[in-house]
Amino acid sequence: MNQKMRNDADAITKSSLKAVLPDEAVARALKTYESRGGKTILVAAGKAAWQMAKAAVDVLGSVDAGIVITKYDHVIAPIPGIECCEAGHPVPDANSFESTEKAVRLVSGLTEKDTVLFLLSGGGSALFEMPLISGEELQDITKQLLASGADIVEMNTIRKRLSGVKGGRFAQRCMPAHVFSIVLSDILGDPLDMIASGPAYPDTSTCEAAAAIVEKYGLKLSEKAQALLKEETPKELTNVTTQITGSVRELCAAAAVKCGELGYKPIILTDQLCSIAREAGSFLASILKTHAGDAPREKLAYIAGGETVVQLTGKGLGGRNQELALAACTGIAGIPNAAVFSFGSDGTDGPTDAAGGYVDEDTLGELTAAGLDVFAVLKDNDAYHALKAVDGLIMTGPTGTNVNDVAVALLG
Amino acid sequence: MNQKMRNDADAITKSSLKAVLPDEAVARALKTYESRGGKTILVAAGKAAWQMAKAAVDVLGSVDAGIVITKYDHVIAPIPGIECCEAGHPVPDANSFESTEKAVRLVSGLTEKDTVLFLLSGGGSALFEMPLISGEELQDITKQLLASGADIVEMNTIRKRLSGVKGGRFAQRCMPAHVFSIVLSDILGDPLDMIASGPAYPDTSTCEAAAAIVEKYGLKLSEKAQALLKEETPKELTNVTTQITGSVRELCAAAAVKCGELGYKPIILTDQLCSIAREAGSFLASILKTHAGDAPREKLAYIAGGETVVQLTGKGLGGRNQELALAACTGIAGIPNAAVFSFGSDGTDGPTDAAGGYVDEDTLGELTAAGLDVFAVLKDNDAYHALKAVDGLIMTGPTGTNVNDVAVALLG
Repeated sequence: MNQKMRNDADAITKSSLKAVLPDEAVARALKTYESRGGKTILVAAGKAAWQMAKAAVDVLGSVDAGIVITKYDHVIAPIPGIECCEAGHPVPDANSFESTEKAVRLVSGLTEKDTVLFLLSGGGSALFEMPLISGEELQDITKQLLASGADIVEMNTIRKRLSGVKGGRFAQRCMPAHVFSIVLSDILGDPLDMIASGPAYPDTSTCEAAAAIVEKYGLKLSEKAQALLKEETPKELTNVTTQITGSVRELCAAAAVKCGELGYKPIILTDQLCSIAREAGSFLASILKTHAGDAPREKLAYIAGGETVVQLTGKGLGGRNQELALAACTGIAGIPNAAVFSFGSDGTDGPTDAAGGYVDEDTLGELTAAGLDVFAVLKDNDAYHALKAVDGLIMTGPTGTNVNDVAVALLG
Repeated sequence: MNQKMRNDADAITKSSLKAVLPDEAVARALKTYESRGGKTILVAAGKAAWQMAKAAVDVLGSVDAGIVITKYDHVIAPIPGIECCEAGHPVPDANSFESTEKAVRLVSGLTEKDTVLFLLSGGGSALFEMPLISGEELQDITKQLLASGADIVEMNTIRKRLSGVKGGRFAQRCMPAHVFSIVLSDILGDPLDMIASGPAYPDTSTCEAAAAIVEKYGLKLSEKAQALLKEETPKELTNVTTQITGSVRELCAAAAVKCGELGYKPIILTDQLCSIAREAGSFLASILKTHAGDAPREKLAYIAGGETVVQLTGKGLGGRNQELALAACTGIAGIPNAAVFSFGSDGTDGPTDAAGGYVDEDTLGELTAAGLDVFAVLKDNDAYHALKAVDGLIMTGPTGTNVNDVAVALLG
């Protein structure tokens, strides 16, 4: 192993993972936050709500009032000035509705000098909900939709209109206060109206579409529900600023920053990689092979984020990041200071205890010396054991976040 | 179709193909050529020998003497001052040996002020040969090696020692004259000792290795052959300058130049691509998807040269370049001014009359409108008919050169 390259890989891994943890991600998003002279009300909803709220209060010093709505057992300690509530997920319960009511009361009667700091993470759809019909009827309509085979877009078109906070309506309730929304994203491509059903994002569905869905599936609705489906959701929200944070895009950007600090010229190829894992590894290796001969040459770092797929042809142990790295080792064999590594931001690659894999110019020789044939290993999808044999596993432990993977190809 | 992007793609295709035709490639390589005050002797061997010699004489005006050794029917017209010979390929014949003898005589008795302009192209191994043993024994030894299962490196280690021109020996014979060698490359990675067995390139094999091969396979050799195997090939050649031209690297570089002229920032990713064709297309599309949102953004051109492979899963008509392009159309659908195209430099992609394929942001919609499903088409390996239906074929006709393929992903 080229220990210098391995050290660089470990430093890049550590630094880029840190950047997508909720704490750091919120702190970064708050850099553009400015008080408008009035009060600051914090509303945090989702599985990472407590961490996001804690980070925000740490950065801002204090807020005027606030509420956290998260899953049971997800409140870790009190936060000064913030009421911390736990509620049902993935199925909303009375605590979800009650806490959301509290949040709505907190943002009522504000002025245009006030700001609602709205911190949203995955799971917010169940945790942050205020049904405009009875819980029983909401449940009944959901069942009718599921039984009829309605798709997720159709479900949401109906449900947003039966909710007092979804589909941009929470932001509407905050008016005339400004909503500074920070969204911790774990969906590739960051579709803002999908994450937690977009409480602070303009809705694209229409009342006409809702009516068509009712007719299509012959939904049975109370008079109240029928009336609600005729009320339009906001199509424009002039009081909202949205910061997406903790996405694979930021994972790539953080990797690029650390590569730069280590003297590499970072080149972000993509943050939407969706290739077959081993083919992505081969592509990255072919890039290093090509530029190894450039003269003069800078130190180079090619970065590709996203989520690759594994083609299962064997019964070995591994994960997509380990396969990607292993597949690159033949192409870079013998190229001085060449390395390819890839890891999942959740710290768990496939059904293994490794976050990913690392290879460099020595790996192929070391595998051969260990009696291992790369092609046979890949055919058996057994990257874990092969990489383990040459100290090529990247171990981080579970990280508490999940913003997909990143692969880095280095020429030192 | 986005006609503006298609026009750019066609201009890049045309311009980069022109750069790797023998004429232009030789003219470019000759830019660094300087007479040393004495005579210039031209020796051209290989399938493109006539074109290379013609181009060199056109650039230099005239040479003092010269010989072309090419395949039968490959001499197109006389070249002033040059003897044009045709000989056997892929099996050398009496004309090969006789013409090579003539070449060796031409370069004998030169001074250090003289220059041998040595123009080498594919096929030179058979066409340019001067066996030091009888043709019968050479044939017999070749048969013994083939029957024993010797690999190509072992074969060459023996054969270079039985040749008066291979393994750097032609350049040795030119001494003290300088050899200005121009190599038209069609092997990925340009291994100079492999192209035509490297008549003007230092040899890396040794007499010890040759002896070991004789023992390993129990080769039966005449006394003369045994003696020849003990004569070392040159390990260093101080009188040779080598210019590799017309390679996939130059194809990529020429594409980059034209992209630059059209206002794109060219980024050469690799000239050694060897991925599965459709996966390379997916990777390039993911790059465009990522950078489409950059603000501010330059016009970008990502270039990847090499030779992809097709995974056969169906019985349709297509080629690797057409598959690569078609596979990219889903990823770039709807991205303004996004295009991916790929073509083979020989003008023939797979068993089709197309050189490659082109897709842009409109292609997916046009295919759908034509009742075609991209995934089904790819599964059937039927890119040709699908691309034909949406005017997505790149047609150049046969080009007379073959330096692999290039794929370009544009963001206009």
